[in-house]
Amino acid sequence: MAVYTHVSAEALAAFLLRFDVGELVSVKGIAEGVENSNYFVETTAARFVLTLYEKRVAAGDLPFFLDLLDHVAARGVAAPPAVADREGRVIHELEGRPACLIRFLPGVSVSHPTPAQARAAGAALGGLHRALADFAGARPNDLGLDAWAPLLARCGDALDGIEPGLHAELGRALAAVTAAWPQGGDRGVIHADLFPDNVLMLGDRVTGLIDFYFACTDLRLYDLAVTHTAWCFDAHGERFDTGVGDALLAGYAESYGLTDDDRAALPVLARGACIRFALTRGWDWLNTPADALVTRKDPLAYVRRLHHYERENLF
Amino acid sequence: MAVYTHVSAEALAAFLLRFDVGELVSVKGIAEGVENSNYFVETTAARFVLTLYEKRVAAGDLPFFLDLLDHVAARGVAAPPAVADREGRVIHELEGRPACLIRFLPGVSVSHPTPAQARAAGAALGGLHRALADFAGARPNDLGLDAWAPLLARCGDALDGIEPGLHAELGRALAAVTAAWPQGGDRGVIHADLFPDNVLMLGDRVTGLIDFYFACTDLRLYDLAVTHTAWCFDAHGERFDTGVGDALLAGYAESYGLTDDDRAALPVLARGACIRFALTRGWDWLNTPADALVTRKDPLAYVRRLHHYERENLF
Repeated sequence: MAVYTHVSAEALAAFLLRFDVGELVSVKGIAEGVENSNYFVETTAARFVLTLYEKRVAAGDLPFFLDLLDHVAARGVAAPPAVADREGRVIHELEGRPACLIRFLPGVSVSHPTPAQARAAGAALGGLHRALADFAGARPNDLGLDAWAPLLARCGDALDGIEPGLHAELGRALAAVTAAWPQGGDRGVIHADLFPDNVLMLGDRVTGLIDFYFACTDLRLYDLAVTHTAWCFDAHGERFDTGVGDALLAGYAESYGLTDDDRAALPVLARGACIRFALTRGWDWLNTPADALVTRKDPLAYVRRLHHYERENLF
Repeated sequence: MAVYTHVSAEALAAFLLRFDVGELVSVKGIAEGVENSNYFVETTAARFVLTLYEKRVAAGDLPFFLDLLDHVAARGVAAPPAVADREGRVIHELEGRPACLIRFLPGVSVSHPTPAQARAAGAALGGLHRALADFAGARPNDLGLDAWAPLLARCGDALDGIEPGLHAELGRALAAVTAAWPQGGDRGVIHADLFPDNVLMLGDRVTGLIDFYFACTDLRLYDLAVTHTAWCFDAHGERFDTGVGDALLAGYAESYGLTDDDRAALPVLARGACIRFALTRGWDWLNTPADALVTRKDPLAYVRRLHHYERENLF
C-alpha cells in the first residue's frame, strides 16, 4: 500500500508521447496494491492507471497477465486491458521498471458486501471463467496445493509465536486437505485472488475485476472457493454470513452453472484456500516489521475461517 | 506519503450524502502529503480530494486554513476551497478524524522547473500575497526565526552524526542570520512552503496552489525567499540555476512588485529559510527509522543551499 518508485511529471509526460492518449492533465500516486507502484493518470483524452511492476511480479509473467486481460476484455468481461502504444507495444520500461498503462475503470471496492453484491460478484466470476474457457495461456500456481507444505516448513515453529500450536494445527489441516483433494476436475486459468478489494462495483453492479497478478492455472472451482472464503465472513473470520454465501453461489450458478458434484468438491477446496491464505499471511506476518507502514493481514482471521469450514458444510 | 486512516467505500458513500455532490463513482487512496490521509474521490457530479487530518495538523488550526483557502479562491487564486455540506459546514468528522472535502484541481507538480514555469510560480505567489493583503486571519509561525534556536538545541550534537561539525555550523549561521534579520518589513499571512510539489501546473501555466498547512503570519518576503530556495536548485542543493532564479523574481515583481529594498532583504531571509529546512529535515532524519516507507529528505541538501547564499548574492 504505497508508491515505491517515483515517476516525475516530466518523465510521465514524455512516456505518454509514445501513446495516442492526449496530454497529461493530472497524476496522483495511489496507495493500492502491495505488489506494484500505481499512479492514477488523467490526460486530455481519458484516464488510466499506470503500473510499475516491482520485484514481486516477474517480468516474464507480464505477457501472460496482459494477454489474459486482453482476452477476457474482448469477451465482455469488465477487466481493464493495457493500452498499446503507437507501435502496438503494451509492456514498457519506466524508471527501470516494467510498466503498463491500463485503462481506468469506475467503481469502488466494498468492505461489507451485501447478498446482492455477492450475487453480482459470483456472476462476474462465472463470466470470467466462461471467457477464459478458450484462453490458451497457462501459468503454474506457485501458491497452489503443492506449495503449501514447503511454505509451512519455511514458516516453521515461528508460527507458534503467532498462536501456540499453530504450526501443528496447520500441518494436520493440510494433511487432511491433501488426502481429500479432488483428483480430477475442470482446470483452467483462474483469478485466484478475487477478494472484495479486487472487484469494483457501483451499487450492486460489477464495473471491474482487477489485480490479476495471482492468476494461474488451477482447478476452476478452487477460484470459487477462494472467493467464498474472501466474501462471506467478517474481517476477523469470526462470523459466516449465510445470505452472502448463498448469493455468491447463486450468482456463479446462474452465469456458469454449478452441479451437485461441484458443490460436493467445494468444502475441501475452501479448506485449502484457508490454509493458503493463513500460510502466506503467516509468512508475511513473520517477515514484516510490526511498525512498517504496510498493513500486516492477520493470519488468524484465516485460521478461524478454516474452523468454520471444518465444522460444517457451508455449501 | 501514505494513507494512514482507512475509509471504507460504504462509510464514504454515507459521508457524501451530507453534500450536494452526487453519488460516489470512484475512490483511490493517494500517496500525497506526509501529514494527512488523502483520497481522490469521484462522484457523478465532480471530483474532490478528501482529506483526513492526522495528528500533525491541529484541529484548532483548521478554521484558519479553510478561511484562508476560501478567501484567496474568492479573489481568483487557483487554490482549492473546501466544499460546504447542505448545512454550510466545511469541517467534518470521519473515522474519528477531522475531515474536509476539497475541490480537485488539475495539473501536475514539476520536478525540474523551467524558467517559464518559475516565472509563473513567482507570479502566482505574488497573486497569492495580493489576495491575502486584506485577509484578517492570523497564525503564529511555529517554525519561524524564534523557533530555530530551540529546534537546533533539541537536535543537539546528534546532528554531527549526519555530518561532522553540522551542529556548530548551523549555530554560527543562525547567529549571523538572527543578527541581520530585518527589523521591520511587511508582515502578513504567507504560504511558507511553496515547493514545486505544492504548485500544480499545465505546461507553463499554474493551475493550483496547494498544501497550505504551514501557512502562517510572517514577513511577506520570507515566503519569496522560501520559494527561491525550493525552486532554483537541483535536488541535492549543489547547483543554482540563475535562469530559474531570475524568472521567479521577475514573475513576483510583475504580479506584486519588488523594490530595491526588498531585493536587499532577500539574502538573509533565504539563509534563514535554508536553516529552517536544514533543521526540520535534520530533526526528521534523526527521528525517522532508515527503513520507514516515508522518504527522509536530506538535510544536507539545504546546508548546501545555505552555502550558496553565504557565498554570493543570488538576488
